[in-house]
Amino acid sequence: MTKKEIQEQIRQAVETVRRTNPMAGSITNTVTINFVANAQLAVGGSAAMVYLPDEGEFLAKAGGAMYINVGTLLPIYEQTLPHVAKVLHETGKPWVLDPVAVGIGTLRTKLLRQFKEYKPTIIRGNASEVIALAGLWELAGGTAVSKVRGVDSTDTVNAAKTAAVALAKWTGGAVAVSGETDLITDGKIVAYSYGGSPFMPKITGSGCSLGGVVAVYATAATPFIAALTATAVYNLAGKRAEKRADGPGSFQVYFLDELYKATAEEIAENPFEIEEV
Amino acid sequence: MTKKEIQEQIRQAVETVRRTNPMAGSITNTVTINFVANAQLAVGGSAAMVYLPDEGEFLAKAGGAMYINVGTLLPIYEQTLPHVAKVLHETGKPWVLDPVAVGIGTLRTKLLRQFKEYKPTIIRGNASEVIALAGLWELAGGTAVSKVRGVDSTDTVNAAKTAAVALAKWTGGAVAVSGETDLITDGKIVAYSYGGSPFMPKITGSGCSLGGVVAVYATAATPFIAALTATAVYNLAGKRAEKRADGPGSFQVYFLDELYKATAEEIAENPFEIEEV
Amino acid sequence: MTKKEIQEQIRQAVETVRRTNPMAGSITNTVTINFVANAQLAVGGSAAMVYLPDEGEFLAKAGGAMYINVGTLLPIYEQTLPHVAKVLHETGKPWVLDPVAVGIGTLRTKLLRQFKEYKPTIIRGNASEVIALAGLWELAGGTAVSKVRGVDSTDTVNAAKTAAVALAKWTGGAVAVSGETDLITDGKIVAYSYGGSPFMPKITGSGCSLGGVVAVYATAATPFIAALTATAVYNLAGKRAEKRADGPGSFQVYFLDELYKATAEEIAENPFEIEEV
Repeated sequence: MTKKEIQEQIRQAVETVRRTNPMAGSITNTVTINFVANAQLAVGGSAAMVYLPDEGEFLAKAGGAMYINVGTLLPIYEQTLPHVAKVLHETGKPWVLDPVAVGIGTLRTKLLRQFKEYKPTIIRGNASEVIALAGLWELAGGTAVSKVRGVDSTDTVNAAKTAAVALAKWTGGAVAVSGETDLITDGKIVAYSYGGSPFMPKITGSGCSLGGVVAVYATAATPFIAALTATAVYNLAGKRAEKRADGPGSFQVYFLDELYKATAEEIAENPFEIEEV
Repeated sequence: MTKKEIQEQIRQAVETVRRTNPMAGSITNTVTINFVANAQLAVGGSAAMVYLPDEGEFLAKAGGAMYINVGTLLPIYEQTLPHVAKVLHETGKPWVLDPVAVGIGTLRTKLLRQFKEYKPTIIRGNASEVIALAGLWELAGGTAVSKVRGVDSTDTVNAAKTAAVALAKWTGGAVAVSGETDLITDGKIVAYSYGGSPFMPKITGSGCSLGGVVAVYATAATPFIAALTATAVYNLAGKRAEKRADGPGSFQVYFLDELYKATAEEIAENPFEIEEV
Repeated sequence: MTKKEIQEQIRQAVETVRRTNPMAGSITNTVTINFVANAQLAVGGSAAMVYLPDEGEFLAKAGGAMYINVGTLLPIYEQTLPHVAKVLHETGKPWVLDPVAVGIGTLRTKLLRQFKEYKPTIIRGNASEVIALAGLWELAGGTAVSKVRGVDSTDTVNAAKTAAVALAKWTGGAVAVSGETDLITDGKIVAYSYGGSPFMPKITGSGCSLGGVVAVYATAATPFIAALTATAVYNLAGKRAEKRADGPGSFQVYFLDELYKATAEEIAENPFEIEEV
């Protein structure tokens, strides 16, 4: 794929979502659940969130894609998450996994280990999470000991490249590593997406909501293009919001505005580079 | 009731709430729970949210009205919701039911079916939800098969008129159907409330928070007036916020500001029409 | 301690937090969980929220301090909260207790009673909550019957002075009573902090998020200084945000901006008075 072909597919993904208002259901943490939904709506998608196993199954089947974020696990997740992931895998529905805080707690570890066989279509996380997930799944580039600190990364995006490529090869989908420069790979190509703002880590949920938006685009594009499109609109909106912002409060408000206002053309032209693996 | 009498009652409802700061407790979904509380505070009410059965009972008894929204069901809701609805019914406390996503999942269906006998004072939903609830309760205008798509409506407000009237007749209260034009009925009169903004469906929780605000006004007015007052202030604030907004992020901020700033006079004069059923 | 010494310690707390980005985990209610996290990030801390017992233990050990808010209890809290409080107590980690709505429900009462022996390092609440907690713990200044109304206070800050001092003496830490003027005490000194805005009770979570920010400063200062520093930055940011705000929606946005922008010097110079107990 040339850069031009990629840009054309980004344009199409953005336009298809705006035209068809696709639903991407979520099972996600309570901290940023509102921001996830509002970001999904801002880019033209529709949001729905649930906790129970049969409701998750319903959303998995009714939606065009799904977002699963293990941020604030509740006891019921032990039943809900493996069940829904299985349904998604068996029906071939694209789904996005956000392995928030991998390494913390026994249920989180058990669930994330189970997900290996259900092959999440797109994995989105910070560098430490991607490295730790690869480690948990015993893939290249992973480490046995998570360096995740709560929800923060202590590794750089480039340090997660091998892990990201290995995860993408395993799932046959794509992996997006969020950081100052973002890395997106399908195991064959690696794209680096530029932009964003230092305010993004100063608001909670910039990563989670990116995962939700990736799921929206996954209803209308390949995993790699979905991840790259979502990352591009985030980098563009972040850069623009920062110019108007006076602090993290106003940044978040303007960021949602800019997600909504960005055109397909502008998103496709947000700076990125590609290289073969 | 003439239009003038209705406007006078709206004025009184708004002023009573601003003067007495009434508490309306909620059991509501995690996606929009913050927005519900902030909207309730903005119009002059007080908010409190719980999940456990005895805490729900406490709020039902301590508050002037209650808001129950079945958006993101948790396992404990199986005990909490029927218990609290029963307490509300038996004590004659007004309560607002938001039958979000009726038709999805077995627990949701079971709970919403149980609510029939506890006669929610006010039902607020989009057209598809109102039609589906009437269907579930085997009332006129309902359909056996829900056309609810996640949390979105695929029906128009007018298509829900028969169902809304039938539900209001059954409960002896009122029903508010949210859409481009909003329909409010007590089974005898139908009011159409105008205003709002295309941004309202682009933010999550405009419907849920309306339900919470209906509960606030239900502490100080009849079910019909409470539903109409809340809808009127929403339509007014939506129209005003849109003028200042640059996207859905700033719209939501200004919307809360305008809820707070709207005077009793302005809310009473927000455009509406009435007709006999 | 002279006023000057206190100001110097406030300055150091603010600067240490900005420089070291300390993590303060939380177990907190779903209504304001997003605001808590964003406020913690705005002052320079890092946030992480969980519900499960072993994940709470992880955060207790990994973070520099912890915030426990009993706002919207879930069934799992019966296991999580006593376990985490015990870990915090045994490891000597500072932790902040927000006894939201003390007096409502049997689980809440049971948990808050259990916390007595785990001696929360800092207790933050409104006047009614502080008085009711002292009553529950059978300390001076408490009353047997809670006057808490949902989440609101019906008592004035000064009415809670005896209770606050008694609680601080019992825990050996500090107590912060939020109101128009805020009272902070370590059982020996009482500080009164001035500022804030009438908009603060018009947004949900100004109290909860203050508790979360107290926990952030507790990683870098004594309990008394942590509580006073957090209260000072809240009073300063509230006063400044009010000047720019047009209602509670924009107030909350600007408030987060001002939390972020306030300098150590400005926070230390926010007006306060001290007196010996």
